[in-house]
Amino acid sequence: MVSDSSKTLRLLMPQWQGGNNPAYYLGAQLLNWLAPHSNDTFEEVPIDRTEEGLGVERGIFARSTLLKQAHAAKGILKKHNPDRVVVFGGDCGVELAPFAYLNDKYDGDVAILWIDAHPDVNTPEHFENHHAHVLANLLGVGDEDFVAEVPKLVNPDKVLYVGLNDGTDSEKEVMKQFDLSVVRPEAILKDSSPVLDWLHKTNISKIIVHFDLDVLDLREFRSLLIANPSTYSSMVEKAPTGSNMETIIRVLQDVAKAYDIVGLGITEHFPWDSYALANMLTRLPLIGDINKTEKPSFNWIF
Amino acid sequence: MVSDSSKTLRLLMPQWQGGNNPAYYLGAQLLNWLAPHSNDTFEEVPIDRTEEGLGVERGIFARSTLLKQAHAAKGILKKHNPDRVVVFGGDCGVELAPFAYLNDKYDGDVAILWIDAHPDVNTPEHFENHHAHVLANLLGVGDEDFVAEVPKLVNPDKVLYVGLNDGTDSEKEVMKQFDLSVVRPEAILKDSSPVLDWLHKTNISKIIVHFDLDVLDLREFRSLLIANPSTYSSMVEKAPTGSNMETIIRVLQDVAKAYDIVGLGITEHFPWDSYALANMLTRLPLIGDINKTEKPSFNWIF
Repeated sequence: MVSDSSKTLRLLMPQWQGGNNPAYYLGAQLLNWLAPHSNDTFEEVPIDRTEEGLGVERGIFARSTLLKQAHAAKGILKKHNPDRVVVFGGDCGVELAPFAYLNDKYDGDVAILWIDAHPDVNTPEHFENHHAHVLANLLGVGDEDFVAEVPKLVNPDKVLYVGLNDGTDSEKEVMKQFDLSVVRPEAILKDSSPVLDWLHKTNISKIIVHFDLDVLDLREFRSLLIANPSTYSSMVEKAPTGSNMETIIRVLQDVAKAYDIVGLGITEHFPWDSYALANMLTRLPLIGDINKTEKPSFNWIF
Repeated sequence: MVSDSSKTLRLLMPQWQGGNNPAYYLGAQLLNWLAPHSNDTFEEVPIDRTEEGLGVERGIFARSTLLKQAHAAKGILKKHNPDRVVVFGGDCGVELAPFAYLNDKYDGDVAILWIDAHPDVNTPEHFENHHAHVLANLLGVGDEDFVAEVPKLVNPDKVLYVGLNDGTDSEKEVMKQFDLSVVRPEAILKDSSPVLDWLHKTNISKIIVHFDLDVLDLREFRSLLIANPSTYSSMVEKAPTGSNMETIIRVLQDVAKAYDIVGLGITEHFPWDSYALANMLTRLPLIGDINKTEKPSFNWIF
């Protein structure tokens, strides 16, 4: 239950460098635009929109830009000191600062539901896009400067994957090292009991939720990186069945009725159609520039 | 060429009743949100968002509401008396008032490019959703009260279909009656000459463009009614190949470089994913109402 005097911060963080695709920038802005109006405190983390600093450094694409943006998010959290945080991404890395803040604020007395098709425990040795590193960082694994952003490491016994469908070999090793718990998509089809039972055993009252939209099935929801129109038909053939949106909504509602959700991050919104439409509009008569014959490589909205 | 002293009105008309689906309301708002900022005069036509007046009357769904909204659009046009109009829909019916206004203002000295998979010359006897009637009305065919909104009827010799892919038997009869010209999707694959050659023969300098997004191929752009996720795979099997977005952009740029485009309507944006996402957000913890277990039948943004 949320008390009246508690304070929720809604944080928009249109970070795209962690997935190396500017469509994540639009995805975050659009997610925020689609969300119901709220009287919560609202802040937008300043995100670099230049092509500077986009090289790979120490195995991480746009490393120093990502660190700078995580520091900016941390500064906003420190300023407001909220009890609860909603984060709209952006790539999954947007959760580093807010989840580290919440785990520290509640002194580790939180469980994390990692609702995602992927485990997000990759490391710079194996994968250069930081959006797949963020849970590793929260557990103390990976680039030391990112790990240094986590004042209190997350207890791996208090992490539950929900809807996990995929993962690289190197990620499976980290999962094994920490003995991370997993609820597969098929286990929540009927009801939410696998999640509720696991939470009951943790004996914890506060929950942080990571919700990567790619946990959803690409046949139902197509604003996902994997649902690229140009390769969609083959992806539909080979991708495992993800979760229905209604299933995830029901799990989150069931959890929220029994526990105090203190953090919710929604990430990886990749709106293919809106991105294409925005690009098109910048080149149409009476609306845009009819001399722009080439599709721009970066298309920022605002 | 657009002179500096000329005035363009950007009209947002999130009408959805003509297609009987509230997702068109969101589609119009989103289209407007995605468009580049402009200093043109901007107006939003007030659109009914209740479930009142949604029955079929004289063969047309929500007939009197649609007429009321067309009158409101006409009032805005009269107030501003613009030289050029951009219309963001909404269902195709949003173009009735602005195209009638422009054809009257320029005394019929305009050609209309009807860029659409469908001919939009249906009538109440054959089809109850008005969004398929609008070109018929502009030509003087269909419900008399809608036709009465067209002070100067469009000359059928000055209408060119571009990208047409479909049509009902009753529509084909109207097309034959008026001997309407057609450029098929395959004819503009290489260059825009079939459109430019036809325009050259009309000996007209001003152009109105109707751009129904459903002219685009559903395999490339999925924010279309036809791209319903639940039936998409069978639609992909059977739907004829539509036009690429880049092809339509090139045709419009080529036309705009040689002629004076005085009207541009973009219609039938049907954002499946954004609609689902907006619905989901209204039901999530920390953002919406966790007791809303049912998907709302109408989901308005704003």
